Amino acid sequence: MDLSIFSHELNIRKKLIEDNLVKCININAHPPSIHAAMEYALLNGGKRIRPIMVLEGAKLAGIDYKKILPTACALELIHTYSLVHDDLPAMDNDELRRGKPTCHIEYGEDIAILTGDALLTLAFELLASNSQVVGINNLNVVKVISEVANAAGSQGMIGGQVIDLASEGKSIDYDSLLNLHSLKTGKLFEASLVSGAILGDMGEEDIKKLRNYAYHYGLAFQITDDILDVTGDVSKVGKPIGSDEKNFKTTYPTLFGIEKSKELAKVNIDKCIDNLNSFGEKADFLKSLAIYTLLRNN
Amino acid sequence: MDLSIFSHELNIRKKLIEDNLVKCININAHPPSIHAAMEYALLNGGKRIRPIMVLEGAKLAGIDYKKILPTACALELIHTYSLVHDDLPAMDNDELRRGKPTCHIEYGEDIAILTGDALLTLAFELLASNSQVVGINNLNVVKVISEVANAAGSQGMIGGQVIDLASEGKSIDYDSLLNLHSLKTGKLFEASLVSGAILGDMGEEDIKKLRNYAYHYGLAFQITDDILDVTGDVSKVGKPIGSDEKNFKTTYPTLFGIEKSKELAKVNIDKCIDNLNSFGEKADFLKSLAIYTLLRNN
Repeated sequence: MDLSIFSHELNIRKKLIEDNLVKCININAHPPSIHAAMEYALLNGGKRIRPIMVLEGAKLAGIDYKKILPTACALELIHTYSLVHDDLPAMDNDELRRGKPTCHIEYGEDIAILTGDALLTLAFELLASNSQVVGINNLNVVKVISEVANAAGSQGMIGGQVIDLASEGKSIDYDSLLNLHSLKTGKLFEASLVSGAILGDMGEEDIKKLRNYAYHYGLAFQITDDILDVTGDVSKVGKPIGSDEKNFKTTYPTLFGIEKSKELAKVNIDKCIDNLNSFGEKADFLKSLAIYTLLRNN
Repeated sequence: MDLSIFSHELNIRKKLIEDNLVKCININAHPPSIHAAMEYALLNGGKRIRPIMVLEGAKLAGIDYKKILPTACALELIHTYSLVHDDLPAMDNDELRRGKPTCHIEYGEDIAILTGDALLTLAFELLASNSQVVGINNLNVVKVISEVANAAGSQGMIGGQVIDLASEGKSIDYDSLLNLHSLKTGKLFEASLVSGAILGDMGEEDIKKLRNYAYHYGLAFQITDDILDVTGDVSKVGKPIGSDEKNFKTTYPTLFGIEKSKELAKVNIDKCIDNLNSFGEKADFLKSLAIYTLLRNN
């Protein structure tokens, strides 16, 4: 897919997600402070990759992706909650996120902890609400809730963050780094893509291909993030450059250098794309998404 | 129900819950630290009132309560996560919980935040897993997830904690105190009792009676808690006495004094019991549970 067509298609999806994310938080609800903080954390100019993956999973399964918008939004809420908690002083202690003060800087640490909790909880309410849409099967809704909880839990995303915190200031090997990132970022990408597919009743064999895509996408994404932390521009990245070095984190560039890391990202993007061949034209957008991620390096 | 029979019946239920809570956490799973912390927080000698309410809701709906044990455990996990986060330095800053060091004292603040997150996430995985039990309807499982997420969320339990934090050091009136406690503790009692009933396919009219029971039970429970914070024995209560006064919290005793507060608890217990009359003998245990709560005053 041509980059200008891809950008146009990406913006259509992003706008659809943004329009629906706004509706997820009832800003007039009581108590006001927590709902303001939830909206602040959520509407922060994120790339919305996870909800877009939910939409694409549904599309590949052959259903209208407007049917599964509550599930798409739920995955973005889970991603957002993880950022709010990761930024806390007891964790990564970051004061800037996408160019704005982090949630605890803006609202205080207590409200930030509760904001994360509330976003995570609301995500499951949204996932459950998707059962009210015509043509969506209740068993599939339950399967998605199970899939997402597992991916976000102690043996998934949270487990990855635990390993990340324990690895700070230590030199870890390649296998440990792979494991860390497949848990911390890969699992939620996988759950996103697969959730849309499950709601669209996709068969197990095809779902397995999507899991492979998401695994390699997650690695390429993380490698690119690590590279940008060294070579990026603060005005584009939206967070301080060099924070990995500051926190003594083992990254792909510290293990392999910048050039080898770029190659490694490319290998993973290729593996991503290979897994989508059997889906034909319907998968063109997801293929381009993988390539686009790699282009962030330049 | 005679107190000795009640105590026997309570212990049977508590043991059933404890035996199943142990199985909820895979202590051999990777990474070890988070799973150890989750188990530490969960297996701490709690009263297990919420999961017991789930069982009783199912019993009143006429189904075998062994069928809904995953849901019962899920409600205890949500209660436990809320305690772990409430105890954090940025929140109530408590170092002792049921006679043991709080989770962040034992495992550090970062792991405690993630432990709360992981327990909350696992709770939803457990709720979803209840759909695999023969005779349990998927639509009802989805309804329960929605009910629980709503009760635990920003307009329920988390909202109550936000109001509680904002009220510290301030004098608040009776209506505000009622609202605070119905959100912070009442909503989760309500969701517990109603979850069991929904899984047992109870009709709306009867479910409404259970909601009323839980509302008044929650108030009586909180009033009793406030009284114990003034008059209690640290070895029995398991947390420091006088912490409300230390934190300048408005409580029932500060508004009405001890004797009037005891009367108010009694009024609420009576209202609890009234709501169960139409259920006949099946509700005897729940009626006794309300009375037993009141007896904690003595």
